[in-house]
Amino acid sequence: MSVIAGRPVAGDGEEFRAVDPATGTALEPAYRALSAPRIEEAVTAAATAFEVYRDTTPQQRAAFLRTIADNLDARRDALVERALVETGLPEARLTGEVGRTSGQLRLMADEVELGEHQGVRIDHAQPDRSPAPAPDLRLRSIPIGPVVVFGASNFPFAFSTAGGDTAAALAAGCPVIVKAHNAHPGTAELAAGAIADAVNSCGLPPGTFSLLYGVGNEIGEHLVAHPDVRGVGFTGSRAGGLALLRIAQARPTPIPVYAEMSSINPVIVLPGRAKAVDEVAQGYLGSLTLGSGQFCTNPGLLFVPEEAAELRTAIGAAVGETRGQTMLTEPISDAYRDGVARLDSIDVLGRGAEGDGPNAPAPVVAAVTTAQLRDTPGLADEVFGAASLVVSYRDLEDVIDTLDLLEGQLTVSVHVEPSDHEALRTLLPTLEDLAGRIIVNAWPTGVEVTHAMVHGGPFPATSDGRSTSVGTLAITRFQRPVSYQGLPEDLLPQAIRDENPYGLPRRVDGTLER
Amino acid sequence: MSVIAGRPVAGDGEEFRAVDPATGTALEPAYRALSAPRIEEAVTAAATAFEVYRDTTPQQRAAFLRTIADNLDARRDALVERALVETGLPEARLTGEVGRTSGQLRLMADEVELGEHQGVRIDHAQPDRSPAPAPDLRLRSIPIGPVVVFGASNFPFAFSTAGGDTAAALAAGCPVIVKAHNAHPGTAELAAGAIADAVNSCGLPPGTFSLLYGVGNEIGEHLVAHPDVRGVGFTGSRAGGLALLRIAQARPTPIPVYAEMSSINPVIVLPGRAKAVDEVAQGYLGSLTLGSGQFCTNPGLLFVPEEAAELRTAIGAAVGETRGQTMLTEPISDAYRDGVARLDSIDVLGRGAEGDGPNAPAPVVAAVTTAQLRDTPGLADEVFGAASLVVSYRDLEDVIDTLDLLEGQLTVSVHVEPSDHEALRTLLPTLEDLAGRIIVNAWPTGVEVTHAMVHGGPFPATSDGRSTSVGTLAITRFQRPVSYQGLPEDLLPQAIRDENPYGLPRRVDGTLER
Repeated sequence: MSVIAGRPVAGDGEEFRAVDPATGTALEPAYRALSAPRIEEAVTAAATAFEVYRDTTPQQRAAFLRTIADNLDARRDALVERALVETGLPEARLTGEVGRTSGQLRLMADEVELGEHQGVRIDHAQPDRSPAPAPDLRLRSIPIGPVVVFGASNFPFAFSTAGGDTAAALAAGCPVIVKAHNAHPGTAELAAGAIADAVNSCGLPPGTFSLLYGVGNEIGEHLVAHPDVRGVGFTGSRAGGLALLRIAQARPTPIPVYAEMSSINPVIVLPGRAKAVDEVAQGYLGSLTLGSGQFCTNPGLLFVPEEAAELRTAIGAAVGETRGQTMLTEPISDAYRDGVARLDSIDVLGRGAEGDGPNAPAPVVAAVTTAQLRDTPGLADEVFGAASLVVSYRDLEDVIDTLDLLEGQLTVSVHVEPSDHEALRTLLPTLEDLAGRIIVNAWPTGVEVTHAMVHGGPFPATSDGRSTSVGTLAITRFQRPVSYQGLPEDLLPQAIRDENPYGLPRRVDGTLER
Repeated sequence: MSVIAGRPVAGDGEEFRAVDPATGTALEPAYRALSAPRIEEAVTAAATAFEVYRDTTPQQRAAFLRTIADNLDARRDALVERALVETGLPEARLTGEVGRTSGQLRLMADEVELGEHQGVRIDHAQPDRSPAPAPDLRLRSIPIGPVVVFGASNFPFAFSTAGGDTAAALAAGCPVIVKAHNAHPGTAELAAGAIADAVNSCGLPPGTFSLLYGVGNEIGEHLVAHPDVRGVGFTGSRAGGLALLRIAQARPTPIPVYAEMSSINPVIVLPGRAKAVDEVAQGYLGSLTLGSGQFCTNPGLLFVPEEAAELRTAIGAAVGETRGQTMLTEPISDAYRDGVARLDSIDVLGRGAEGDGPNAPAPVVAAVTTAQLRDTPGLADEVFGAASLVVSYRDLEDVIDTLDLLEGQLTVSVHVEPSDHEALRTLLPTLEDLAGRIIVNAWPTGVEVTHAMVHGGPFPATSDGRSTSVGTLAITRFQRPVSYQGLPEDLLPQAIRDENPYGLPRRVDGTLER
């Protein structure tokens, strides 16, 4: 059932069920979409809750985030059990993902207490300044208001109901309305329960969190166009993200949309490293086939020197030894098969075996040249799943020319030996322009939840490359700065008072204080 | 003449002249618009310059900004002399504005050296972490690339060629292409000379700065749509800003647009303070008529209690004593007269005298009720110039209901006595949602260039309320974060090396270091 401001709501719209992708079996119970009046109710409750939640102290907000984390951990077995049948992902992965998700919430709680995100700056009045006195000015970043988060298919926990965008928005002081992903409604329901219970036990206004079910695009369009919604977090397809972005831009008052959409995460093996044939081939296949390749950081392109015939052969052989794993949904597995069909017209380097069940297509790696990649429209488009291109390059200039033609990426990786360092130095500016994260001698799958992480990148990797969806910096995406001039001390928000009751790091009269 | 990468370029397009708004006389010399190939040249030079300029040290960038400031100060007399005839603004104001502009550049130089804007975060590797080792991750914010800045009509120095957006972009490491405002081409040329000379004397690539002339919208459209342009700063009309925003959003790769567009800067006089009749009336008229009301922070609405008849009378009398001053251009003065004509159908509280010359229309203040303001379409639209509405309100709830219907603002001000503090406390959340700066007991005109300033605000005050165009925080608008994972020490950018050669404030393993 949907959760609207703490109450379970059955819904009165279209009925749908999750499907076990391993068997194609529809799962009980049925879920029902919400009608427009119910969606209105959730948004109104969020707007009302915002008036209270925006003024919670760092300690209150941190306690709330930690309570959600505790609730998730306490319900881990139930969460994993349901996610297993709704996603087809392996148990160990799902168990780990719950831990990642609760850890992410706890890290965000620490961040709220640290308080650097409030961006406090105080310039005291200078009544004697000549020719004119300077006023007292104080700056802080405030929460933007209710945020809508669209759960992702491929991370039922870490990028869904209680995932990164929810954690960041709640940490910033924004109520959250989650549109559940229809592939895992039961998992969403359980995670929503963990949040709603925390709202309740922490004494926060019920509208601080809602979970809504809907079928088709209507509910998303309704939410993103709603005047009381002030920001959007999305992880999913390019078409979906762009549709939401366009709605947000066309509003009388546009709002920020953080849509993580599309990335093929190029990996460049420089000549010195290309000789480590087995290590590179195994590392590549491991990253490519992890979780059926259903990662936004999945390596979709591997650049290798054209003379590295042995490496290509080893890759071809390694792909041959792989086996398909169940993908998240039938539409995703169908789209993968369609995408792979495009590769059949080029030189297929290797193909794994089909896995068990209806939705476990075989991993595929094809071989192309940089010229083919540049000249074939659509060849560099993302195929979501364990499909990738090995791209043979002539020299460093050829790599740079080809990277320059790619769209923005979440990550770009380079594999080097010390003999490749000068080439990497030459590459660096191109890599910085291309991606949000530059990786050396590691594979792109695996996104640390920490302070220095950027999980973002230039369009269309994300709709807004000035932000990250993972790591503590994510909290800033749901804020905006406000300056307070000449406020009497008794009316100043606590965060910007001289006595600094929250112990925030700040800049006072130009000097950083910690 | 235009300046393309350090070379004066005469232009081969349409010819135009500045006009002295005090007399209506066309001024020598003629300027000529650039044709498309010349615009291409400037953008290509900027993109080339970026490859070098992005890697300049904080010290190099700071020295460059200070050299521009010195050059402006050294040419102050010539700048003011030309601006006098091109803008009709008073000499003292223009002299002060040059100082503000060079001061802004020097403050930005200090900021570059302080380096907080680089946002450095280092998470060291944890090879022994269980279950998996953690990689070395380092984050910094990098410049986005060449930025196009559109000069403003109303601040020929501080928001034009060498103004705030130019200073912020250069400080961030972005080459700048300025589209000169056609109302003050000579002033733009002189300021451009100050920058181009600094580029040269500091040994920077010539494409670091260009100044382009154009007539009509074509040149702006060309620039904003250009794939090598990566950001836009604009101060001007709503129609102009929205047009650029739409072009930027429709690009294959959208880019950030920071357009400051439209604000009527509500001022609320609470009941306790409304009794200070003369002080409020004089303060209001002073702020309203300053610089012919041609400030983006001009007070377009003054909320007064409905029972404050004496205050309204005093305001009416005070307006009657004012006199029009020359506006910036004939089109601006014409638009003002059109805007004021709309007010004639309502209750005009007072009208000043026409000033000398063709473009010095009279200040006008009209009186309305909150109900009229809410119910009359267009009544709250900005009239650029010394026109304003005195809005009579019933009670605090009436104020809040009316503010809730207004669009986003640069500023909102409240005038209070201690007896009004509780009412102000109730108002605060509404004020925070409405504007980028909240002012108590001062008038909105006057924008300090300092650390805690936000000159920005929700749409349509600006196209992106997450930023400021004034103050040291402005530098961050032309950056985006990038994460570096596992880079060998010898390849790390200086800013994120352990030994911290630039002495940047940073967060290391979660701890803030200063």
